[in-house]
Amino acid sequence: MAAMTNDLESTPVAVLGLGAMGRALAAAFLRAGHPTTVWNRSPGKDGDLAAQGAVRAVSAAEAVRAADLVVVCVVDHDAAQSVIEASAGDLPGRVLVNLTSDTPERSRTTAAWANERGIDYLDGSIMVPIPVVGQPEALIFYSGPRAAYEKYEGALKSLGGRPAYLGEDQGLAAVYDLALLDFFYSGMAGLVHAFALAEADGVPAASLAPYLDTIAAILPPIAAGTAQDIDAGSYPGAAANLGMMAAGAGHVLEAAEHRGLDVSTLRSVKEIADRAIARGHAADSWASTIEVVRARSTS
Amino acid sequence: MAAMTNDLESTPVAVLGLGAMGRALAAAFLRAGHPTTVWNRSPGKDGDLAAQGAVRAVSAAEAVRAADLVVVCVVDHDAAQSVIEASAGDLPGRVLVNLTSDTPERSRTTAAWANERGIDYLDGSIMVPIPVVGQPEALIFYSGPRAAYEKYEGALKSLGGRPAYLGEDQGLAAVYDLALLDFFYSGMAGLVHAFALAEADGVPAASLAPYLDTIAAILPPIAAGTAQDIDAGSYPGAAANLGMMAAGAGHVLEAAEHRGLDVSTLRSVKEIADRAIARGHAADSWASTIEVVRARSTS
Ligand SMILES: NC(=O)c1ccc[n+]([C@@H]2O[C@H](COP(=O)([O-])OP(=O)(O)OC[C@H]3O[C@@H](n4cnc5c(N)ncnc54)[C@H](OP(=O)(O)O)[C@@H]3O)[C@@H](O)[C@H]2O)c1
Ligand SMILES: NC(=O)c1ccc[n+]([C@@H]2O[C@H](COP(=O)([O-])OP(=O)(O)OC[C@H]3O[C@@H](n4cnc5c(N)ncnc54)[C@H](OP(=O)(O)O)[C@@H]3O)[C@@H](O)[C@H]2O)c1
Repeated sequence: MAAMTNDLESTPVAVLGLGAMGRALAAAFLRAGHPTTVWNRSPGKDGDLAAQGAVRAVSAAEAVRAADLVVVCVVDHDAAQSVIEASAGDLPGRVLVNLTSDTPERSRTTAAWANERGIDYLDGSIMVPIPVVGQPEALIFYSGPRAAYEKYEGALKSLGGRPAYLGEDQGLAAVYDLALLDFFYSGMAGLVHAFALAEADGVPAASLAPYLDTIAAILPPIAAGTAQDIDAGSYPGAAANLGMMAAGAGHVLEAAEHRGLDVSTLRSVKEIADRAIARGHAADSWASTIEVVRARSTS
Repeated sequence: MAAMTNDLESTPVAVLGLGAMGRALAAAFLRAGHPTTVWNRSPGKDGDLAAQGAVRAVSAAEAVRAADLVVVCVVDHDAAQSVIEASAGDLPGRVLVNLTSDTPERSRTTAAWANERGIDYLDGSIMVPIPVVGQPEALIFYSGPRAAYEKYEGALKSLGGRPAYLGEDQGLAAVYDLALLDFFYSGMAGLVHAFALAEADGVPAASLAPYLDTIAAILPPIAAGTAQDIDAGSYPGAAANLGMMAAGAGHVLEAAEHRGLDVSTLRSVKEIADRAIARGHAADSWASTIEVVRARSTS
């Protein structure tokens, strides 16, 4: 072991769950020189990891006993809960980090369960695809007891160079995760719809794709301005107003309908803008649509 | 004039329509040293431009007669049509560029009208906000007769350093414009919804905004991969499959419903994914949802 670890920094870790992501996490710990014990429900997923120096455990509890820092990454929180329960007796005194994605509610349920048993519990969300795990730009959210996070921040940086600690509430990592996914899936829907619209006029997707960077590049500065408007509760529309933008969205909707495309997503986007306009926001920025999104019952 | 123009490159231009965008276009021509004549339906919008060297015309036809290259930029194609009709007799022999945004259908209608009268007609779409007009990164689409475009490509570069000529069909600039807007408005809807979701758990928009760059940064490479899948008609899902992504979108939807947010857009995104899964695409990439978007009648 001595040859592959840095004595000052190395932390014995366990990785429970060796799906595509669990294997990537274990490999990242091993590359950073942490003694790593691995376990998976079904056997046969740890071959490569053993070759990279991982120790195989025959049960989750055995893996936990070998580690100070325990990482769980399985398909969903129900699966995570069953893995954690199977090793519950050995978790107090260690730090448990659950990198399984799910809702804030489920994270908080697991947190309450862990709290009752004196288990230090952090919930996390991995915001990057597998090839980016362990890289400097890899963003991973963490939430839960600050002391537990700070104790193992060094080791957790092996998994991604851009860890973000969000606060004591274990649900926060999932809140940020779901909010980013909300933006992501809307973007993906728009992307595919854009290709379908162009295709209907004979434009191959490969011809359109190079120009989509223009839009992707303007979204982060717009996000910053939108955030400011929302937090301030005022939506100055001098640069671009909702009335003009709703007309633009209306042209897209009209063209898409004319071509027989599914317009369910577009129509709902346009309706939200129209409802904000009906509430007096025509001269405000797009950020004003949050008043319709959040106030469903009163709109 | 000689002092402010480059004799080799300078082209007498007219700008018809001096709204926010028309004024920016005229100013960009003037900065590049092109003799520029301007006209607007209502008076009083050309003061600054005259100070920068623009010649004021009392009618659209008078402006056209002073120019080789005529640019129209008004609120929509109906307005553009009325401006163009008022100067129809003077347009043959010149090149008319319509930078008004609207649908491909309306661009093609204007193109047919121009064609009957022997007018060289280019249709264009400005893809950047006003402060970026005239800058090297300003993307402007053009479509119509290639010879007309090439004749004035130099002068048109004054308006934006990233002109893109798309082909002979005058509708193409609007097709690309609407496709990019399709992506843009979906992204904007997702952005505001993400802020609403985070806010429901007490997270200010300003805390979430810095992380949205992660998503914006992954969209262009995903767009390139999605384009390839769509053009090939095959959607390998090894890196990320629709079944997993629909589950992720489902978590977002569940959390948003639980918080009482409007979920009309999200629900339609999730339904499109689910319909693609029902057609056998669970193990394919998100690109496979195009089969549902384009094939409304058979899904
Ligand atoms: N893949 C990505 O790109 C990515 C990116 C960000 C976040 N994530 C998140 O990472 C987590 C894991 O994803 P993945 O890609 O590794 O999924 P995966 O390849 O499908 O692996 C699923 C893992 O869950 C285990 N599992 C399922 N049910 C179980 C149960 N009842 N008890 C114990 N173990 C159980 C599986 O064990 P068996 O082998 O025994 O079935 C397997 O190890 C998910 O929450 C996902 O959202 C993934
Ligand atoms: N602003 C942007 O950031 C932006 C970005 C990209 C593309 N665009 C596109 O650029 C075009 C112009 O936008 P804008 O921002 O300049 O709009 P704007 O500031 O609202 O100006 C509208 C212009 O249209 C004229 N007009 C309206 N109806 C007319 C009619 N029937 N006959 C003659 N002229 C008429 C107005 O003349 P009056 O002064 O007489 O009313 C005014 O010059 C639009 O198609 C827009 O989509 C704008």
